[in-house]
Amino acid sequence: MLGLPRSVRIREVGPRDGFQNEPEIIPTADKVRLIELLGRTGLQRLEVTAFVRADVIPQLADAREVLMQIDVPAAVERSVLIANDRGLDAALEVREHFDAVSVFLSASQTHNAKNVNRTVGESLAGLERVLGRAAEAGLRRTAILATSFGCPYEGVVAEDRVMELALALADAGATEVGFGDTTGMANPAQVTGFFTRAAEELGDRVELTAHFHNTRGQGLANALAALQAGCTSFESSFGELGGCPVPAGATGNIATEDLVSMLHEMGVGTGIELARLLEAADAAARTLGRPLGSHTLVAGPVDWRRP
Amino acid sequence: MLGLPRSVRIREVGPRDGFQNEPEIIPTADKVRLIELLGRTGLQRLEVTAFVRADVIPQLADAREVLMQIDVPAAVERSVLIANDRGLDAALEVREHFDAVSVFLSASQTHNAKNVNRTVGESLAGLERVLGRAAEAGLRRTAILATSFGCPYEGVVAEDRVMELALALADAGATEVGFGDTTGMANPAQVTGFFTRAAEELGDRVELTAHFHNTRGQGLANALAALQAGCTSFESSFGELGGCPVPAGATGNIATEDLVSMLHEMGVGTGIELARLLEAADAAARTLGRPLGSHTLVAGPVDWRRP
Repeated sequence: MLGLPRSVRIREVGPRDGFQNEPEIIPTADKVRLIELLGRTGLQRLEVTAFVRADVIPQLADAREVLMQIDVPAAVERSVLIANDRGLDAALEVREHFDAVSVFLSASQTHNAKNVNRTVGESLAGLERVLGRAAEAGLRRTAILATSFGCPYEGVVAEDRVMELALALADAGATEVGFGDTTGMANPAQVTGFFTRAAEELGDRVELTAHFHNTRGQGLANALAALQAGCTSFESSFGELGGCPVPAGATGNIATEDLVSMLHEMGVGTGIELARLLEAADAAARTLGRPLGSHTLVAGPVDWRRP
Repeated sequence: MLGLPRSVRIREVGPRDGFQNEPEIIPTADKVRLIELLGRTGLQRLEVTAFVRADVIPQLADAREVLMQIDVPAAVERSVLIANDRGLDAALEVREHFDAVSVFLSASQTHNAKNVNRTVGESLAGLERVLGRAAEAGLRRTAILATSFGCPYEGVVAEDRVMELALALADAGATEVGFGDTTGMANPAQVTGFFTRAAEELGDRVELTAHFHNTRGQGLANALAALQAGCTSFESSFGELGGCPVPAGATGNIATEDLVSMLHEMGVGTGIELARLLEAADAAARTLGRPLGSHTLVAGPVDWRRP
């Protein structure tokens, strides 16, 4: 297959996106243990937690403690999700314990309104402030655009609009823009067109990241399509945790170990040791006490040397 | 995305591959009802059952009754899986009730020995006889090459060897050769190279069909890669049934509805009405009394018009 990059960067979002979506609150000590297992897989980027309202998301109320307690290699970029100025205030109290922030808004009005009760314009204005302050604090800055490939309420989200918002986020100081397929509506043909255009229009301004869900089983096919269009940065979740699966029982995020398995089998490097990643996912399954959706965790990695 | 075909053919193999792998034997009347639902989805090819030893595979002991009882549109090609001459003898007793046969062997010696207790050469000799007789009976003839992309026992299966066997099957009278990724070892880069070569070396001799498993979550990515290499014929299973999932809990076949969803979203036609296919998969889930692995069945189809 021509045109594949030699390597990509993966941000593991399970400790935030996954742990946040668990019905039972995971004890801080378990979170720390799982994050440290992830930190030793060789991955470069790790979304550790979020500074959000504890009454709304009690699962991540221990953000400060988790950040202060984890011991991960210095090469791992530790990021935190921030909803607004208040979240950034709280995060900056432990500034030395992380390296980057992620902020988010939806490309579609209805999804944004249902998610954060604001218009897209209001969210953007708020994020401009947050991104500016994060830049002053010397933090790397990722902005995630949810519903970039379609909205469950509005249907089609105009590609022009997504590009325009991504440019506005770059102008506001984002060093990376992630495009989220929040409810798994993207298809590979769309994704190839999208990332080809994004590379042309935004590639010299910001790093472009793909965040796919496996809602309709197409997650890795979409990742392949993004890769073929030149995308070299991905977000995924170990154990296939999280990703706001809707309806109940549906799949959310693509599993990091499935993505890594596909990439390595194609000769695309990630820096991650798949065996260690599977150990971390297995530890998560034991901690949560239930089987996880990750395919490679169940089937095991491809073993070409088996007798 | 350039180079995608306008349409593909899908052979639905769930009534054979799926029903065969169910621990409980499905009553004949239920099989007939589910097959008739599938027959009305618009699909072109349907693997109805297999003529195999009833003591080994009691799940399909009612092959003759199922074939005789089903009522599907005349445009649907009804095929049966045949293991050997004895199977063909039994099938030919109800010759007017089907249109095509599928035969199989493994590309790797160890897998073939464990599956049918013969060498690949012995299997091939037997299939040459069966294919010749099937041709005399006016039946279309598909030969499936299992472990075409890797063997769980031997590891790498030489592409040269797979091409050689496919050519031998074409020489023996197969009108179609299906390449099976029996334990989900294929990756998209491999698949693109494989089908590009197969089209060059075999494309003017036989129809080339891709049969992928979703063992490590890469099933649809592999289907996309095959499609990009010019493959226009696929096998899959409604509800993600069957496919000899190993180990327990692993995924086998790709779900027909996930494949159809991806294809339709990309503008590639299948002739299948996804809503009817989902009804058939839902009926299978109710009949079997358990949730199925199909993603689109759980999440529902992409609805761009949702208010």
